[in-house]
Amino acid sequence: MATHPGPVPAPTLRRLPSYLRLLRSWQAEGRTGVSCTHLADALGQTATQVRKDLACTGVIGRPKVGYDLPELAVAIEKFLGWSKTNEAFLVGAGHLGTALLSYSGFKAHGLDIVAAFDIAPNPRGEIGGKQIFPMSKLADLVRRMGIHLGVLAVPEAAAHDVAQTMIAAGIDAIWNFTPARLLVAPNIIVENVDLAQSLAVLSHKLAEKRAQRWQVAPSPDPTHT
Amino acid sequence: MATHPGPVPAPTLRRLPSYLRLLRSWQAEGRTGVSCTHLADALGQTATQVRKDLACTGVIGRPKVGYDLPELAVAIEKFLGWSKTNEAFLVGAGHLGTALLSYSGFKAHGLDIVAAFDIAPNPRGEIGGKQIFPMSKLADLVRRMGIHLGVLAVPEAAAHDVAQTMIAAGIDAIWNFTPARLLVAPNIIVENVDLAQSLAVLSHKLAEKRAQRWQVAPSPDPTHT
Repeated sequence: MATHPGPVPAPTLRRLPSYLRLLRSWQAEGRTGVSCTHLADALGQTATQVRKDLACTGVIGRPKVGYDLPELAVAIEKFLGWSKTNEAFLVGAGHLGTALLSYSGFKAHGLDIVAAFDIAPNPRGEIGGKQIFPMSKLADLVRRMGIHLGVLAVPEAAAHDVAQTMIAAGIDAIWNFTPARLLVAPNIIVENVDLAQSLAVLSHKLAEKRAQRWQVAPSPDPTHT
Repeated sequence: MATHPGPVPAPTLRRLPSYLRLLRSWQAEGRTGVSCTHLADALGQTATQVRKDLACTGVIGRPKVGYDLPELAVAIEKFLGWSKTNEAFLVGAGHLGTALLSYSGFKAHGLDIVAAFDIAPNPRGEIGGKQIFPMSKLADLVRRMGIHLGVLAVPEAAAHDVAQTMIAAGIDAIWNFTPARLLVAPNIIVENVDLAQSLAVLSHKLAEKRAQRWQVAPSPDPTHT
């Protein structure tokens, strides 16, 4: 069921969670079947794109009937690796790190942050029920707990050094919340949460809207001059 | 210079910041010209894709010479709306909100968070030099300061109500850091920071890597049994 030719493009991977979210909410309403057109209409995409994206899961839709909804949802979860939980260590328990530690929604997406590390651990020693250890314990605990995934939430200036420490300890996949672009060996997975990409879309749309506003009302409101 | 036919696709917008980051670092090294091939090689894309993406800026590369580097960098910034600063209000001064308020890097991307609002404002009344106001002051300050952009960092359960309050106050663009999908009028811009998308890419790659690991070493290490 999980066979597919060649690697799946990242844009497809990024769209799968929104299909899954929709399928799970339809399932909660009692629906049992779904077509590409239903998904496409609800998400403002083309049915062709949806069909292409879903092909990677290996689930086959039947003509005029569509997909079995629960089967498709489970297949997407499996394909994304969300049916198994990845245990992760977080490094950098500042404001952002604390926010990530406190968020309970990651478990539904296969991520369980089991502990955190910091150069200056909170004297209380825990945040949201997760223990905060000093950095000196990282390597030992990575080995003992067999952790492969690290969440990097340190200040940008420390990002490279801390990433190297994580990799040396045995972590081979990093979810990078810093703006730093990490230089790592090709066998290390790095996924950047790049807020600049998101800001690019937002500020371009705002600039377009501002231009439209001036076309509609080119002169300032006289009551405010 | 900023003319282009039709709307620019979001994937192009998301790629522009990485071109800009690279151009600025090359400019700092003293380079004055750049070709699509240089950019493509450095970023692991095709030159055709880079040429297409850059077309939206209106800057024309010359055959065999390429682009004037500073001109291209300025044109991308202008196109993204990063040459002008958008002042924004942040709502929700919890851990995530505090992290966003404390981050100084957004100004380079045209975003200046000038104040924050919370139902339970910090008694100190400020974080990172930015004042925290009670929610009751939002509408008045949005009007007085002419703010159009809001950063939403409240808990998921409060997201819909708070977004409606922001929109009623006059905010028409929301950078949404909550997992909630906001239902808003079509004239309101919403850009979601969807960590599930990023996790989808990360956990799929991890699952693939785990599968490879088992293909290479199908039996457990006998020294550990």
